[in-house]
Amino acid sequence: MPARHPRLDPLADRYAARTHGMKSSEIRALFSVVSRPEVVSLAGGMPAVTALPLDAVGSMIGELVSGMGAQTLQYGSGQGDPRLRERICDVMALEGITDASPSEVVVTVGSQQALDLVTRVFCDPGDVILAEAPSYVGALGVFQAAQARVQHVAMDDDGLVPEALEDALVECRARGDKVKFLYTIPNFHNPAGITLTEERRAKVMEIADRYDLLVVEDNPYGLLGFDREPMRALRARDAERVIYLGSFSKTFSPGLRVGWVLAPLAVREKLVLATEAQVLCPPSLTQYAVARYLDTQPWQQQIKTFIELYRERRDATLESLAALMPPGTTWTRPDGGFYVWLKLPDGLDAKLMQPRAVSAHVAYVPGIGFYADGQGKEYMRLSYCYPEPDQIREGVRRLARVVEAELDLHTTFGAVDTGRFRAVRPATPQVPAVEPITGPASSDQVGDQP
Amino acid sequence: MPARHPRLDPLADRYAARTHGMKSSEIRALFSVVSRPEVVSLAGGMPAVTALPLDAVGSMIGELVSGMGAQTLQYGSGQGDPRLRERICDVMALEGITDASPSEVVVTVGSQQALDLVTRVFCDPGDVILAEAPSYVGALGVFQAAQARVQHVAMDDDGLVPEALEDALVECRARGDKVKFLYTIPNFHNPAGITLTEERRAKVMEIADRYDLLVVEDNPYGLLGFDREPMRALRARDAERVIYLGSFSKTFSPGLRVGWVLAPLAVREKLVLATEAQVLCPPSLTQYAVARYLDTQPWQQQIKTFIELYRERRDATLESLAALMPPGTTWTRPDGGFYVWLKLPDGLDAKLMQPRAVSAHVAYVPGIGFYADGQGKEYMRLSYCYPEPDQIREGVRRLARVVEAELDLHTTFGAVDTGRFRAVRPATPQVPAVEPITGPASSDQVGDQP
Repeated sequence: MPARHPRLDPLADRYAARTHGMKSSEIRALFSVVSRPEVVSLAGGMPAVTALPLDAVGSMIGELVSGMGAQTLQYGSGQGDPRLRERICDVMALEGITDASPSEVVVTVGSQQALDLVTRVFCDPGDVILAEAPSYVGALGVFQAAQARVQHVAMDDDGLVPEALEDALVECRARGDKVKFLYTIPNFHNPAGITLTEERRAKVMEIADRYDLLVVEDNPYGLLGFDREPMRALRARDAERVIYLGSFSKTFSPGLRVGWVLAPLAVREKLVLATEAQVLCPPSLTQYAVARYLDTQPWQQQIKTFIELYRERRDATLESLAALMPPGTTWTRPDGGFYVWLKLPDGLDAKLMQPRAVSAHVAYVPGIGFYADGQGKEYMRLSYCYPEPDQIREGVRRLARVVEAELDLHTTFGAVDTGRFRAVRPATPQVPAVEPITGPASSDQVGDQP
Repeated sequence: MPARHPRLDPLADRYAARTHGMKSSEIRALFSVVSRPEVVSLAGGMPAVTALPLDAVGSMIGELVSGMGAQTLQYGSGQGDPRLRERICDVMALEGITDASPSEVVVTVGSQQALDLVTRVFCDPGDVILAEAPSYVGALGVFQAAQARVQHVAMDDDGLVPEALEDALVECRARGDKVKFLYTIPNFHNPAGITLTEERRAKVMEIADRYDLLVVEDNPYGLLGFDREPMRALRARDAERVIYLGSFSKTFSPGLRVGWVLAPLAVREKLVLATEAQVLCPPSLTQYAVARYLDTQPWQQQIKTFIELYRERRDATLESLAALMPPGTTWTRPDGGFYVWLKLPDGLDAKLMQPRAVSAHVAYVPGIGFYADGQGKEYMRLSYCYPEPDQIREGVRRLARVVEAELDLHTTFGAVDTGRFRAVRPATPQVPAVEPITGPASSDQVGDQP
């Protein structure tokens, strides 16, 4: 019998092809570090769930079990609870989707599972998915697991660039690529913090129509705008061409893992079969909890509470960045959602700088994780959703000092050598934390996500 | 723009190869029928959750939200809550697995997701999986979604036949097949109701060793034995060669969807990456609920309560079958779990007989769903877990009458014509329900599973 903890994996030659490409995401890899109390984490995308009325939610869920245990503790349908699917249609109406039927909705274990299902239903190995540059790291993980290829499409302050989308489609067509869909996050983009303008929405859908392109619209943050009413979803413009992903993780609770996908009936049928093969059915208790929450609690008022809280944190972030960051640093100005996307001064590398930042007790997510092609070295994602404003200010102060020190180093030694130096010899006194950061995710740590 | 509800799926040519093979399972297809109140359903595998102390469980879960909302409503780690993984190791010790470490456990959305993850990590399209004949319908769905090929291995009253396993391995080797693992349910098999004997366990593991075969041990029912202490798991005999799947669906609640996989560390690492790509992390609330239940409630006593209840229902089933079934009908005698596997008299076909049974207000699952290769026409699965003993007796009475009538018909018209007659002309007055039965799963109905 082989040793219990072999140094070499005795099964190494037995895995599926898809398994060899799997690697820990930049975010997951940070866990063991950022969960230390002395570190201000601008890395994780954890919502501020303690702003919920926990006593009321607790009583509500307790009663669901005591009074309706025969349903809430039992298996449910693969497609999800019908009552919840009705309420999901009400929620989507807030973003202009007024023609959705509960029969077109599939409840999923977070919208992550929704994306995984859509990808499995559509993508064979080698198929192409178009996605913004940058894109959500968890989506890139799904696409990689499906052995799909990602072609990035440029975005600017107005969101996805329509001309770049068309160029990509022409290029793919010329190469004979099978483009299965465009994956896009139109509102308060993760990680870019950018929203697709009204004008661009029309253009993107016009191009989709012209090129017969399917669009997967991922919209976890759409109701979390700081300055205006929610924008009209892409799905509200085309019911056949857009598959819409939604989530209660940011408007209620991520720990319940309740998301959904809205798709034309023929696609929905495939998605139900796929989810039945994957999990049989989503948890009943969490579905009943969300439906009851929407039925009995002031959930729209609660979203306003979340918005105020995130707005204050966004303000703290932007004000501190403006006050403290050295010249040459730029960043996006989100008007909703959780994230600021920051570009370092020329020549700096966010991933190489990371050990120094952690030593200075501030954490972020390096930009390269948000690209499938190795771009993004000069970028980082800052999340303002979880820390209090004072922590945010302190975190940005620490980060600014690290960037300044990095700039000094860069000026003294030049970009390339500095980078190489630290990559080869990470264990200098100031940079002790390289291994936990770049190693596999420590799975005993508190999670994160989007 | 295409019509909203097109008769033809406009995306029909865009799906992945795996999607074309997906079809609704025999169980799912029954839902719309068996949920009618007048039908005695011996079809579904729903546990008797109302036997739980619902008030106590409700208070417990309510307090978890009110008092620990910051954890229970927040994202968790992809691998699952560390405290729960510790308690899972305690549970597995009841079946002789005393060397498991929480670091080798991954919490999943039911053991269905555990099997899906294992399959995705190991299987490329065309790879071979060995499985008992019959095997769990939900497992066959996972294997099909992975485009793996299933080779069945015969079982008898003592479980999987070792000689048949060896023959299958020799055959696969000769053909050059890549056999990725043996999938087996050693205890109170679904659907066969059979348990692998002690002697056979040793032989199966000896063969696995000799052929360097990985074994996936699926054990949702192991603690639900009526007559004796739980048997020693295959995993207790070999920690490197066996990947073990467990579930709280039958010992606590299926509506929480908490299962797990225990695997060697190198495999576990792949499984964590795969589950992160699929769902990010399992729901926090349901994991805390199970851990707290194990910590504070008399869960082993509760399992005894379940056992008494299921034993009584098993007895009602076996007594009624013995008293009422016409000669030529045979069935297994389970000493635990949920299922009896029944073989019809020669020439009868359980699937063709199904519309008549539903007309007579009794439902079962036709055997062919439990085979990947079209075998099993003469078999059916009867579940005694959910209906009360009186309902079971009435259900078996109705079923016996249907079988007798079917036998008469068979004697009069001969096997083949009878079958063809009903398959071609299903809408006779006695057989009105063919379409809902054989159509896609109606997703508005209450679910089922294993």
